[in-house]
Parts: sequence; structure tokens; C-alpha cells
Amino acid sequence: MITVRGIQELRSQIAAMKKQISKPEVTVGFVPTMGFLHEGHASLMKQARNKTDIVVLSIFVNPIQFGPNEDFESYPRDEKRDLAVAEKEGVDIVFIPTVKEMYPQPTKTTIQVSGLTERLCGASRPGHFDGVTTVVAKLFNIVQPDYAFFGMKDAQQVAVLTQMVTDLNMPVTIVPCPIMRENDGLALSSRNVYLSSEERTQALCLSRSLSLAEKASRERTDITIGELRSLVTAEIKKSPAAVIDYVEILTFPGLQPLGEKQQLNDLEDVIVALAVKFGKTRLIDNHRLQKVKVFSHV
Amino acid sequence: MITVRGIQELRSQIAAMKKQISKPEVTVGFVPTMGFLHEGHASLMKQARNKTDIVVLSIFVNPIQFGPNEDFESYPRDEKRDLAVAEKEGVDIVFIPTVKEMYPQPTKTTIQVSGLTERLCGASRPGHFDGVTTVVAKLFNIVQPDYAFFGMKDAQQVAVLTQMVTDLNMPVTIVPCPIMRENDGLALSSRNVYLSSEERTQALCLSRSLSLAEKASRERTDITIGELRSLVTAEIKKSPAAVIDYVEILTFPGLQPLGEKQQLNDLEDVIVALAVKFGKTRLIDNHRLQKVKVFSHV
Repeated sequence: MITVRGIQELRSQIAAMKKQISKPEVTVGFVPTMGFLHEGHASLMKQARNKTDIVVLSIFVNPIQFGPNEDFESYPRDEKRDLAVAEKEGVDIVFIPTVKEMYPQPTKTTIQVSGLTERLCGASRPGHFDGVTTVVAKLFNIVQPDYAFFGMKDAQQVAVLTQMVTDLNMPVTIVPCPIMRENDGLALSSRNVYLSSEERTQALCLSRSLSLAEKASRERTDITIGELRSLVTAEIKKSPAAVIDYVEILTFPGLQPLGEKQQLNDLEDVIVALAVKFGKTRLIDNHRLQKVKVFSHV
Repeated sequence: MITVRGIQELRSQIAAMKKQISKPEVTVGFVPTMGFLHEGHASLMKQARNKTDIVVLSIFVNPIQFGPNEDFESYPRDEKRDLAVAEKEGVDIVFIPTVKEMYPQPTKTTIQVSGLTERLCGASRPGHFDGVTTVVAKLFNIVQPDYAFFGMKDAQQVAVLTQMVTDLNMPVTIVPCPIMRENDGLALSSRNVYLSSEERTQALCLSRSLSLAEKASRERTDITIGELRSLVTAEIKKSPAAVIDYVEILTFPGLQPLGEKQQLNDLEDVIVALAVKFGKTRLIDNHRLQKVKVFSHV
């Protein structure tokens, strides 16, 4: 495994590695992260390792996707441990640029995806997704991957980036990967380290509420969006520390709002998306309610 | 020469052509145009032919860079003649997509370059440069060129695209090419066909005013920006049909405004940029006042 900090060096290393592999079409898999890697990231690296010839991991806490009052400075970092995780997962190249390397000048150029970024985290975090699309486009142009792997925990990010790749004809395929959870259901997140023991216990209401939604969607296919939202919201509110930012039920990947009286069985590809604060820590989680396809065998 | 209308076919053809050339690093040169090709475009193709192994020309009148009251519908088109010009210049692949091929859905994604797009044509044509950067990024992602050739007649476009490529780490080098002129000085433009004979004669005031600026900059190095602007404006106003949109003197490529009292000899890389209407036709022209480097030989 090679660790690279410069853009030019990264390009050279990928080119050199491509030449070493004697195949007609060598594929590059890319896992962009902000580091402080957990099993969720490891699952992305595993998928990349399975699917592609050269696996590149980037670790970069991207300042332009943080708002002025957000946790850019305090975002957890542990390069040594991250490198050990990457090594274990068989990553070929780890790219760890400085902010100066990625932004030698403040960027004048930004990429905006309208229609998908106004709701959910886009509403609570203005400018966040412009920062995400811009840095991901930069990283794609630097790494030039064939496949890029993103966790579905940031479902809106997956939707936004897929839209960007489609609209701009970027020569890369976005591979969404399932949410990874602790045994007790808490979705893995680098920000979980911020939680006190008590907050962590209370935060389990997120996954519990999503499980309830899943159960209800199976048992009561005529349930309405409004009823589903009430169910989820009520479950979260059982935890006194939970301060709801949003409980949204939208189409996926279009992220369009649904009428409160629409019944689930009339819809396809619905996502229940949550953002809830516990103390100073804002957690997100989501679950897709996918229609079970019924095949009739005569 | 191959003519291609589909994105996938273009990618396949470029890949196949790369394999046919037995060199370790095959380079692709790209000339994006809106067609109705003239000697200005031909000069771009010549440069591409000289510099790169595979030359791709695109012809696409991009709807999203035209304002609602602009000339998208009436923009001159002549595919047959364009193909003859491309053939003559030794182009390998001509890419002529339909609007549907480039925008199967209206794009939700746009690229914005701030700080360079607010002045000059950006002020008169709101949204124009977002349309240009977005389509050029799409074309770059489709063609994946090593070099892309643009005429300096659209100096602001060159500045904006160079900024985009730098900010987003696009793996392509923008090659600015000199303005081509008719013998009488008129800068070549596909829009020149709109001009009546009388308007065309009057439009010569543009190049005349720029020649005056060049002459003054050599003979009076202490000339101020204000004096230079007066000189240029006065020359244009001698043509009664000329309706000035702007006469701007800015830094290049930063496109930053200069004080009226600043003297030319204190400055580097200054551009005089004009947009003037003759009847319904809006023409642009520009000239860079480059400092003559004086080497002292002892």
C-alpha cells in the first residue's frame, strides 16, 4: 500500500500501477472519505477490492462542505489508525492531501445540483452539497476512477452525486453500498464518537423508528405517508434527548415530497430519512421501503 | 474522418482509434464549436492537428448558454459545409450530437465560476457562462481530451474555462489560440453573416479602435486606463450604427477592473474588450496589451 499526498504523484502512481497490471482494461475503484474510518468505510473498500483492479482511498476533511458553525475543526482525525484499516482491506493507494494541495487558491468554481439539494440536509446545511459535489468532482478528475463507492447512510449525497455524474456525463459509475450498523442498530458514523454514553443509548431510537416503518410497510401496505411519519416521529420522541431536525418521507432517488394521504402501496422507491440532534451531535439515518415484487406463478 | 452522433459511439471510436496508434501515450486534441465553421475554427483544428494524435471536433449549438431572447433558433447552421472544412483540416472524428443526446433530461447540475463571469458578456448575458461551463465540462467528460483549443476572440470564455479546469483539477490543458481576422480587420465570427453590407463596413470600427489602443500603448506607455478607454470609445462612436454594450479594460486572465488613473506601464496583462451592437447583431472583439519585455545587453 502506498500513501500519497500530492496530486501529481497520485496521478503518476495510478498510471504506473495500471501499466504493471497486464490486462487490456484495468479498472480503478475509488472510495472517497473524510477519514476516521469505521466498518462502514471498510465495507466500501471491500466492495471496491472485489470489483476493481486498483483501489484508491482518499482521506480529506473537505472544508468547503462545512458551514461556519459546523465541526470542521473538531471533526475526528486519526491517520495512523486509518492507514491500518486501509492496509487490512487491501487498498492499493491512500491519497491524503492537505487543504493547500486541494485548494491552492480558494475555488471560484462550484458545482450545483438543483432540485435535490434543497430538502433534507441541504435545508439544514446551506451550501453543504455544493461543497460535496465540488470536492467529489475534483477527486474524480484527479483519480479518474471507473467506479466510486458511497455509503447509503448519506442517501441524499448518493442521489446528488448520481445526478451530477449523469448530468455531466462523468465517466464513472457511482456504486451505492448498504448502511452498516452496530449490533444494537446504531448506524455507523465517524461522528458517533461525539456521543456520551447516555446520548448513544438514546440515539438507538433512530434505527428503532426505521425498523417500525419497515414493519408497518410490510404489514399495512395501505398505510399513508402521514401515518408512517407519525409512527416514526412518535418513536423518536420517546427519547427525551432527541431533537428532531427532520423526519422526511420522499421518493428515491428523486427526493420529491409525497402527499400525506398517499398510500405506500401506490408508490415505488420511498425513503424515510431522519436527522436528529443528541446534545451537540447531529446524526442522520435512513431506510428505503422497497416494494416486494410479487411474481405470480400459474 | 468519422462522423458520430451518439455519446457511447464517440467513446468507442476514440478508444478504438487510441488502440490503433502504436505509441505509449496517445494524445487527444479537442475543438468544441457551435459549427458554421470559419477560418478561426480552422486555425484551432490546425493547432490541434499539429499538437495531438487524434483530433476531435464537436459541433453543438448549446441551448443552455442562450438567453430567452437570444439567437438560439436562428443561430446559423450548415452541417455539410462544416464537415467539408473539418475534412480539409484533417480532423479524425466529428461529434454532432442532438440536443436530446446531450440533455436527455433538463440538466439539474450546473457549474458556476464566480468572480470572472459577472463582468463583460456575463453582465449582458446572465446565465450564459453557466451554460458554457456546464456544456464544456460535459464535452470534456465525453471526449476526455488532453488538450482543448479555444479562440481568444471569446477571451472571457478562455479565462472562465481555464479557471474551471484549474479549480476542478480537470485532466486537460486549455490552449488559447489567436483571434483570426478578415483582411480588413473584422474578427471572424459565425455571427458576421447577420450583418448587412453597411453594418459590416461600420463594424470595422472595432478592430480600428483596438489597433489605436495597441499603437497608443506602444507610443505612450504612461497612458492611463481612462485615456485608453476614451480613445477606444471615441473611435467606435465615429460609426453611427455602433451601439456600445461595453468597452472594458481589465486584467487578464483575472478580469479584474482597473482604476481610471492607473497607468498602463504599471500594469501587466491588460485586455481591452468590446461588445457592440450593429443593428440586431452583437459583436465582440478584444486585444491584449502585452508588455514588451526589454532585455538589456551589456
